[in-house]
Amino acid sequence: MQIDTMDAIEILGTISFAISGSFAAMQRRLDPFGVLIIAFVTSIGGGTVRDLLLGDTPVAWMRNVNYSLLILLTSIATIFFKTHIKKFKVTLFLFDSMGLGLFTMFGVQKAITFGLSPGICIALGTITGCFGGIIRDTLLNTIPLIFRQEVYATACILGGVLYFILLYFNLGENVAKIVVIAFIFVFRIIVVRYKITLPKFRY
Amino acid sequence: MQIDTMDAIEILGTISFAISGSFAAMQRRLDPFGVLIIAFVTSIGGGTVRDLLLGDTPVAWMRNVNYSLLILLTSIATIFFKTHIKKFKVTLFLFDSMGLGLFTMFGVQKAITFGLSPGICIALGTITGCFGGIIRDTLLNTIPLIFRQEVYATACILGGVLYFILLYFNLGENVAKIVVIAFIFVFRIIVVRYKITLPKFRY
Amino acid sequence: MQIDTMDAIEILGTISFAISGSFAAMQRRLDPFGVLIIAFVTSIGGGTVRDLLLGDTPVAWMRNVNYSLLILLTSIATIFFKTHIKKFKVTLFLFDSMGLGLFTMFGVQKAITFGLSPGICIALGTITGCFGGIIRDTLLNTIPLIFRQEVYATACILGGVLYFILLYFNLGENVAKIVVIAFIFVFRIIVVRYKITLPKFRY
Repeated sequence: MQIDTMDAIEILGTISFAISGSFAAMQRRLDPFGVLIIAFVTSIGGGTVRDLLLGDTPVAWMRNVNYSLLILLTSIATIFFKTHIKKFKVTLFLFDSMGLGLFTMFGVQKAITFGLSPGICIALGTITGCFGGIIRDTLLNTIPLIFRQEVYATACILGGVLYFILLYFNLGENVAKIVVIAFIFVFRIIVVRYKITLPKFRY
Repeated sequence: MQIDTMDAIEILGTISFAISGSFAAMQRRLDPFGVLIIAFVTSIGGGTVRDLLLGDTPVAWMRNVNYSLLILLTSIATIFFKTHIKKFKVTLFLFDSMGLGLFTMFGVQKAITFGLSPGICIALGTITGCFGGIIRDTLLNTIPLIFRQEVYATACILGGVLYFILLYFNLGENVAKIVVIAFIFVFRIIVVRYKITLPKFRY
Repeated sequence: MQIDTMDAIEILGTISFAISGSFAAMQRRLDPFGVLIIAFVTSIGGGTVRDLLLGDTPVAWMRNVNYSLLILLTSIATIFFKTHIKKFKVTLFLFDSMGLGLFTMFGVQKAITFGLSPGICIALGTITGCFGGIIRDTLLNTIPLIFRQEVYATACILGGVLYFILLYFNLGENVAKIVVIAFIFVFRIIVVRYKITLPKFRY
């Protein structure tokens, strides 16, 4: 079996978001079924919205049952290992940021293969990265949705722009991908860690 | 005109959810237009999400105007008969559970005809059964959404698994369908009636 | 370059909703990125849901980058001109009502070209007109969503019915379109201005 870069990115992103979804659900004290459902929704939400917009149906997770199995196993493993993890919030945040970078990159790349213009590719990457977390938070009634959403979106958009800049300067495609994933991951951590915000409008 | 089992299941499910949606909207004191819209959304919500995911567009209710007429007539009848019904909550709950069973079965069957694997079929059945109610509750701002959602999902998933077990033991297809619909209906009533819940995670 | 009536309607609708979305976002004190995103979502939300239901994918804004540029420029212009506008709420409301009329007409017309029955065309027009505003309000956590939603829907449905009546009486197509757009615009303003509501159900 040969796994290319894109497969690896999608698999790692699926695992990251399944872990982040499981943690978020356990934090809200859902029962095991609820945890599985939130893990599933977080993992496949962004890609599903992307595939629907592209008209690439049946959507990816329905054509290949391996994604569902991967999410199921990841979620069960997360439930079992949770007693060994003390810093719930930090772990959740790190995996969420990792998934954000991986899925944004995957979304941008998939949009490119559909022959869409760079701006639209960046929008689709942002949607792929953000929607899993947005749906997760909406279902869990987490309040600070909008604030975090902005950080999400800003990180994704800048990452997407960076990817096209790197390609323009003829950096190798795989190197550019890894740089972009790392950029989004680090950017979001720095923004949240140091509470950096854009200037707000006064009314 | 010949009506096969699947048509009958879809028609009964549409009526059940139109009644449940109308009751929920009247309970929240919406005007007649609002009642019609909530009845419509509850009835077609689950099937619409399923058809979008399958890429089976234009979605079912757009290709056949009879579904809209059925929902309209059911909704008007519900509004007129409401004065004769004293136990609002119980009636709403019974029709909602009936619709859940019927639509889950319909969704599983439709996914099978698309040649998808059993796990994915069960997921699509769950989506068909649950999304109408989820959208209805979201639009009506009903609070205990998440709790009921879990009961919804658990009943649908178990019903879907049961269907594949019954098929495996060569029970007739139509018999299996009726057993599954009855199972989901009764299961949900028992769970809600006796307040059975899965163990929650402690934090 | 030739612009026909439908193009003009879509362009004006896109601009109207981009302005309404920008104002709503500035009112909630979002940062510039947030304003752009809300403007974008408000403008493309209704059409995206319509195109998904029709199976007309990749959806319109992804095939033609000009829509995104139009929204971007409108949004930036709105941000710069905002200091000259004192009556925020009224301006927001007028552009929102204008967009409602334009997009409903566009949705009805597009559904007709897909050969759907009049009732379904009206439903799709209503969806095209309403969903941008619904998503905008949901993301911004505006509370009186449901009330406004009913006014939205009622105006759109009546406008759609009016269009088919005008066509039936052989009024020119373009004249009928302008009459319908004006009707929805004026109807909504009158309803909101004089606080007209349909009778509610008593419980």
